[in-house]
Amino acid sequence: MLAGGGAGEAQDCALSAATLEHVWAANGIRLLADGVPGGDVNAARARLEHWEQWFAFWAGRGDGYESLAREALAKGRRKSAGELFWQASLSYHYAQFLWFHDPKNRDAGQRRKVALYREAAPLLEPPAERFDIPFEGFTIPGYLRLPPGRSGRVPVLMVLGGLESTKEESYLFENRCLARGLATCTFDGPGQGEMYFQAKMGPDFHRFASAVVDWLEKRPEIDLGRVGVLGRSLGGFYALHSAAHDPRFKVCVAWGVLFDLSYYDTMEDPSALGFAYVAGYADRSLAAPYLKQTLNLAGTAERVRCPVYALHGALDRLIPPTQVDKLRAALANNPDVTFDMPADGDHCCHNLYHVVRPRMADWAAERLGGRV
Amino acid sequence: MLAGGGAGEAQDCALSAATLEHVWAANGIRLLADGVPGGDVNAARARLEHWEQWFAFWAGRGDGYESLAREALAKGRRKSAGELFWQASLSYHYAQFLWFHDPKNRDAGQRRKVALYREAAPLLEPPAERFDIPFEGFTIPGYLRLPPGRSGRVPVLMVLGGLESTKEESYLFENRCLARGLATCTFDGPGQGEMYFQAKMGPDFHRFASAVVDWLEKRPEIDLGRVGVLGRSLGGFYALHSAAHDPRFKVCVAWGVLFDLSYYDTMEDPSALGFAYVAGYADRSLAAPYLKQTLNLAGTAERVRCPVYALHGALDRLIPPTQVDKLRAALANNPDVTFDMPADGDHCCHNLYHVVRPRMADWAAERLGGRV
Repeated sequence: MLAGGGAGEAQDCALSAATLEHVWAANGIRLLADGVPGGDVNAARARLEHWEQWFAFWAGRGDGYESLAREALAKGRRKSAGELFWQASLSYHYAQFLWFHDPKNRDAGQRRKVALYREAAPLLEPPAERFDIPFEGFTIPGYLRLPPGRSGRVPVLMVLGGLESTKEESYLFENRCLARGLATCTFDGPGQGEMYFQAKMGPDFHRFASAVVDWLEKRPEIDLGRVGVLGRSLGGFYALHSAAHDPRFKVCVAWGVLFDLSYYDTMEDPSALGFAYVAGYADRSLAAPYLKQTLNLAGTAERVRCPVYALHGALDRLIPPTQVDKLRAALANNPDVTFDMPADGDHCCHNLYHVVRPRMADWAAERLGGRV
Repeated sequence: MLAGGGAGEAQDCALSAATLEHVWAANGIRLLADGVPGGDVNAARARLEHWEQWFAFWAGRGDGYESLAREALAKGRRKSAGELFWQASLSYHYAQFLWFHDPKNRDAGQRRKVALYREAAPLLEPPAERFDIPFEGFTIPGYLRLPPGRSGRVPVLMVLGGLESTKEESYLFENRCLARGLATCTFDGPGQGEMYFQAKMGPDFHRFASAVVDWLEKRPEIDLGRVGVLGRSLGGFYALHSAAHDPRFKVCVAWGVLFDLSYYDTMEDPSALGFAYVAGYADRSLAAPYLKQTLNLAGTAERVRCPVYALHGALDRLIPPTQVDKLRAALANNPDVTFDMPADGDHCCHNLYHVVRPRMADWAAERLGGRV
């Protein structure tokens, strides 16, 4: 692309290179933390020069892992097959996660991710049980995993995705929870993952979360008196929102604090475009008024009565620290609030994943009666 | 160091920067594969300019994780404490692993690593049981881990370190074996880890391996009819050497093929210095004749009668491909030999860890009657 072409092409190219750098800076370690292999991250860093090359690279990795998964399955190697299907799914997840400028490939990548994780699910240890809950004309897709070696009903932690995080992203974090005696339950809400094809982001994510709790009530393995909710990034907003509306949530973890979108006009792409995309808007300026109105915890966070754990990196470059101040003020009357703000933590403290993820799981397990 | 000083200092400085680059190129992904957090690798890549800064950086991380581990333990968070002690141990492991030019710090780092892993061991899941086996005036230190949910006697895979790999390095790989129903047994042999302080590298590593099998014979949990041996890098040599001498080894995995040290004169530092160091020589030229005589499978590999799996990356820059040719020839009459040589694999295929490590574990579990 650099050779030939006019000034416009050169400009596109520079923009594309800058976008790639921005994406790496904001997400490089997140990929590793969620289980993308170091060899793939290094290869991508070495080979990719422009953002436009991103999707094809990771889709290629996904296809490769899918082939290896099918080979393993043919040999009866179920554990390896499960891991490889998950790896394939994760490759497609990160292929499409910020690919909002190209809906055709984003949607195709999303569907591939979903299909590959469905193949992984029964092979994982413990397995992930797929559910599809009918709810007011929608079908809520999700997964339930039960901790091994349980006796009697178990507590459950609902794990919510955010802007581009979905129910398939937190497998490794789920494993930490499961090791601590917690069941995990994940689903895609409006605007997320599979659900995006049915419903765009709206003001009532919490109603979908409550519908999933209704479904959990019918599961004999689950202790409905010990249900927690945790969300990542924008999912932290959803977790607080859901806990404010449904007293069946006994603990709430905001893995990253997002209180409102008052700062949306200064948000960088591709995230800003992403918010518009999942809300069903063609561009960010059209989406801005709707987003600012829809995503706002003022008057709602005050209603969260259960214990709250809020994790936020002091070096977060995606969400400004004033968001944390707002949450702190709103929770002033909640007697059991912990703010964990590592000085060297980036967005969601992904760069400290090995320290903060076990810490969140410990906190939730302690409150819900798991094992630490 | 760059400011001031004469030509000598500038030269030292350039050498130190070049050494750092060499170490990263040869080991960057290995650190991630063995469990060093991506955030630490990125921080080290960003901050370190010279090899001379390496030890202090990783020792600092180790001290930090130790503090976090003690905090977690004080709160009764045993799982997190175990992981953090392991993380601290791993930081010290990689602080000292190639630090052969500074024996005082290398030895201190080695001892710190050992002590921190001892604290982790009972907290790991499943726990690592420390053993110290008296053998001809030496004491062989090691760990045994038993797979969860077992009924009856279980197969065991002996996991050997290499030049600077030790019994503490392969915790994550052990977990893959344990999930497949194999017990794991690791120890430091002559020249390795703790044992270095008792015995330097010699021609009889296999006798130490056999002494550990003797000890395993007395363990009621272990099925002595199903013992395998696997070794990493130089450990691949030790595994083949041990299997050649002891028919109780029923399978052998060379995780990287090293057949002899005929290429020692062309080997780069710090590895070349490392071979001299662990053999008790002050420099490589003095060590060369001894190393070439001591480390040679000619006439020995032919005696390996059990099934052999040999993994070697076609892009390995540390061990020349002629080493693989020699092993292939020596095993020509062994009816059950698998050479796995990924075209894009580096040394020990660390860059493909997520693919080849499960594959080795599957192969061993299939032969030893584990679960895949």
